[in-house]
Amino acid sequence: MKIAEMRVTPIAITDPPLLNAGGLHAPYALRVILEIVTDDNVYGLGEVPGGERPAAALEAAREVVIGKDPFQLNAIKRGLYERFGEGSLALNGDEPWDHRTLMLAISAIEVACYDVMGKVTGRPVCDLLGGRSRDRVDFSAYLFYKYEGAGGALGFDTDPDATGWAAARQKAALDPEGVVAEAKAMCDEFGFKSIKLKGGVFPPPEEVAAMKALQAAFGPDVPLRHDPNAIWSVDTAIKYGKEMEGVLEYYEDPVRGQESMAAVGKALDTPMATNMCTTRFEHLPGSFRLGSEDVILSDHHGWGGLLSTVELARICKTFGRGVSMHSNSHVGITMAAMVQVAAAVPNLDFACDTHYPWQSEEVIMGGRFAFDDGALPVSNEPGLGIELDREALAKLHDRYVACGLTQRNDEIEMQKVNPGWTFQETRW
Amino acid sequence: MKIAEMRVTPIAITDPPLLNAGGLHAPYALRVILEIVTDDNVYGLGEVPGGERPAAALEAAREVVIGKDPFQLNAIKRGLYERFGEGSLALNGDEPWDHRTLMLAISAIEVACYDVMGKVTGRPVCDLLGGRSRDRVDFSAYLFYKYEGAGGALGFDTDPDATGWAAARQKAALDPEGVVAEAKAMCDEFGFKSIKLKGGVFPPPEEVAAMKALQAAFGPDVPLRHDPNAIWSVDTAIKYGKEMEGVLEYYEDPVRGQESMAAVGKALDTPMATNMCTTRFEHLPGSFRLGSEDVILSDHHGWGGLLSTVELARICKTFGRGVSMHSNSHVGITMAAMVQVAAAVPNLDFACDTHYPWQSEEVIMGGRFAFDDGALPVSNEPGLGIELDREALAKLHDRYVACGLTQRNDEIEMQKVNPGWTFQETRW
Repeated sequence: MKIAEMRVTPIAITDPPLLNAGGLHAPYALRVILEIVTDDNVYGLGEVPGGERPAAALEAAREVVIGKDPFQLNAIKRGLYERFGEGSLALNGDEPWDHRTLMLAISAIEVACYDVMGKVTGRPVCDLLGGRSRDRVDFSAYLFYKYEGAGGALGFDTDPDATGWAAARQKAALDPEGVVAEAKAMCDEFGFKSIKLKGGVFPPPEEVAAMKALQAAFGPDVPLRHDPNAIWSVDTAIKYGKEMEGVLEYYEDPVRGQESMAAVGKALDTPMATNMCTTRFEHLPGSFRLGSEDVILSDHHGWGGLLSTVELARICKTFGRGVSMHSNSHVGITMAAMVQVAAAVPNLDFACDTHYPWQSEEVIMGGRFAFDDGALPVSNEPGLGIELDREALAKLHDRYVACGLTQRNDEIEMQKVNPGWTFQETRW
Repeated sequence: MKIAEMRVTPIAITDPPLLNAGGLHAPYALRVILEIVTDDNVYGLGEVPGGERPAAALEAAREVVIGKDPFQLNAIKRGLYERFGEGSLALNGDEPWDHRTLMLAISAIEVACYDVMGKVTGRPVCDLLGGRSRDRVDFSAYLFYKYEGAGGALGFDTDPDATGWAAARQKAALDPEGVVAEAKAMCDEFGFKSIKLKGGVFPPPEEVAAMKALQAAFGPDVPLRHDPNAIWSVDTAIKYGKEMEGVLEYYEDPVRGQESMAAVGKALDTPMATNMCTTRFEHLPGSFRLGSEDVILSDHHGWGGLLSTVELARICKTFGRGVSMHSNSHVGITMAAMVQVAAAVPNLDFACDTHYPWQSEEVIMGGRFAFDDGALPVSNEPGLGIELDREALAKLHDRYVACGLTQRNDEIEMQKVNPGWTFQETRW
């Protein structure tokens, strides 16, 4: 069995005006959908954060991938490293890919290969990663500060016909009351049992007040997480971290860099978590040496795929670190892959992040995944257990072309609303 | 697909009178052969170091394993931990298994499950572990000091009809000349390109002389390794390690414990290797913190199986440690499993150890594996790529019953030759 074809399709999906330390989400989030097709016409799917660059990388990867057996992941990865990774420059005269681009390409291809492997063996992907450790994967409510608006074609307008969560999703959330209302609407709709607030948007006291309002509204049994996206200073993080002792399940990336994380962690009893300060295997020795984090947020897109995520979890177990899971705006291929790898990781200690409730479109047949009591069941269908909706894919690709966005840039989006706004590495 | 049957067969295989720090090999080495059979009559094979205890453990494991899907390795492992691991005592009133027994049982079962998984998917096991990173696996010549004799039914006698390596294998090797002659005979027969001497047998100057004699005989292009099995003191290891600078590819377990290894490693330029001081995942943080070893010898029997070996290798890569592979006296099921996992590990940096040339029997159809230029080809047949020779297995089991050995005890064997000899943790 050989890979005969690769189809790379950048898409744009509706994304509401969500705020974060980097600015504002554009009306569309970009993803790239990868389809590999074998010579016996089995197809596998992958999905990664999008835009021009990952799409171009996947187009370029074709020369390495075509003709390979999809089970030969080590050979495919080595081929990509050798052709496009650091050190490849001397060989081919091109700029080598940056680490993130390499990881995204490897992830898209590896996930699509696992989908094929599952289909041809009649097994869900988790069974090829050590077997399922759970039948349901818990997710957390992922709250954002946001402006009013729906995103997509509506831009910052709202859709007057929307009902239920689709209507609630359009409302502004700019203060503790708005955050609690958002949390209630989201938890009512999806049944989530833990809550994360993407912070780093407003002055720390306002965000601390939001976390305390969440605790007051949901009680002590709903774990809460706060993520200032590394734009607080060490002193600020310690000061407000102390105010949130007993409030947070974990404190995610309040500050930038492992040394700063270690300093904050040392001053607090709250566990420290990261998906910004320790984001690749090469960072782990430093993290463990400094004791900078207690919980590592895995992400198969950024860490090089599903098997790498299983390996990361084993490393975390070995060094006494917890494992959680990071997310970006995404559709169902990523969702299915997250669920399969989450099922396989024995020591997944926390409910996973997902932006999925903020999105409204799909590229898979049957439409969007439905959370049951905050969790998704682990499919037992072969591969990722999904089929591509080619019509939906074509529409979302047309929109990618039409919307004119080629990369994510939250700073530019924010400047459209707040002229002169600039990103600051450390704002407070 | 469910596991319907487990067949546990202890066997005894002929082993020559090999010397080591713990004493003398008995005329037979003990292994346990595990066969699992699914309800659709697919069978998978596992092999682990033997004797009464691992065999009893595997018999007891039946209650956890029967009825499980062989792809559900995480569930099987968790079941074994919960039923037999530390902490199980309170639940069932039995003594929990020691760590080694638990690892051996998990390894035998996991390898047998991978064999089944490969067979039903039509794929060699390495393709289920990330894919092959190589088509041939290099092995090293594994030299022993030894008394004259063949082992097995012959005890310490020799077989006058033996020819070739079978004859050379019976000769004594008790000094540098004997070691070099053994190395030449073994490398001539199998084509090995690197050489390890199991030391800790004679006073250090004699062993250093043997290593230097090997270097003189084989030249600088044949990597050499020396393994005193942790019975040298730190001072001794440093003193003789300095004499062997430039001679050794790596210096394996000259001393006992990570602190001692770190002290020796700090004093030398020679890389330090271990399969005695860092032998389980829980030991890795200490090893990395102390810098006690540069190379970890993997062993799927001791580290909990094939996927765990892949994970160990990823950890070693992450922390800048090399990966090699440990061996004990074994037959072809272990050999096939070693080759498959070695094929899958991208960063297998060294030729693997194997005792295989010292054995003469097999339990697989077609007889013994044939090394080609010091390497074994990676089978592309489904599963482990081997079939059980049930007649051979029955004979070797009869011999297990007849020989009366129930566990390995090299000290008792040594006392038969040298009355009053006792093992010493630190001899020199």
